[in-house]
Amino acid sequence: MDDTTYELRAVGWVQSPLADRSSAPRQGDEGAPPASLVFRPEVLPAAADLQPGQEVLVLTWLHQARRDVLSVHPRDDMTRPLTGVFATRSSERPNPIGLHRVVITAVDGEIVTVDRLEAIDGTPVLDVKPVLREVTER
Amino acid sequence: MDDTTYELRAVGWVQSPLADRSSAPRQGDEGAPPASLVFRPEVLPAAADLQPGQEVLVLTWLHQARRDVLSVHPRDDMTRPLTGVFATRSSERPNPIGLHRVVITAVDGEIVTVDRLEAIDGTPVLDVKPVLREVTER
Repeated sequence: MDDTTYELRAVGWVQSPLADRSSAPRQGDEGAPPASLVFRPEVLPAAADLQPGQEVLVLTWLHQARRDVLSVHPRDDMTRPLTGVFATRSSERPNPIGLHRVVITAVDGEIVTVDRLEAIDGTPVLDVKPVLREVTER
Repeated sequence: MDDTTYELRAVGWVQSPLADRSSAPRQGDEGAPPASLVFRPEVLPAAADLQPGQEVLVLTWLHQARRDVLSVHPRDDMTRPLTGVFATRSSERPNPIGLHRVVITAVDGEIVTVDRLEAIDGTPVLDVKPVLREVTER
């Protein structure tokens, strides 16, 4: 075990009508608007097989989140006890990686549009993964 | 848009009988053994509310994966066409973050044991998140 750190590089960015965190819902299924992922030209081959209708997991870097918060009142509800962030979906956590389950609605060159995303405009995109299907269909 | 990179810090490590990638299954539900997450003392408050029976998503850094691979034959099956990695679960991808859905089976101080994990011994752990429940139960 050591103290090594690892360097993430954005593969793209979120384009969204959500301008700031105060206007963003907590989760995609709580009223998040459609949004687009704009990929960097140099990673486009990685996105080549993304197609409308696919259900995917988008990983983002929640660049405005605090990283020194280890426990929170879930959903900022002060009546709920302080809870270790690994048992919550708080964006404040040591490595603020956002995980968003979305459906692709359109693909146009480097722009992939998804049905709903709670990340704000300009959020770095780290990765896209297909939702795992049954073992026999992989 | 800029070229900013982001620094990940391991919050812990995987302890597993899987010594190398050649012995690891592709996914947890393809025969992966139980494993433990060993958290760093300084992040323990973040893990304080993890409990046996909880279903969680473990995020890892697949430190042995190549990052310059943008397309692969899925599951190394050469009869399948080259596919952009964002449409696959290949570990080779620009940001090799592993995503593992597991059930916690035991918690003992800084050691959290899970039912099955395909990551090899020594893999850095980045985050743990609860599986999202229904909107009314969050």
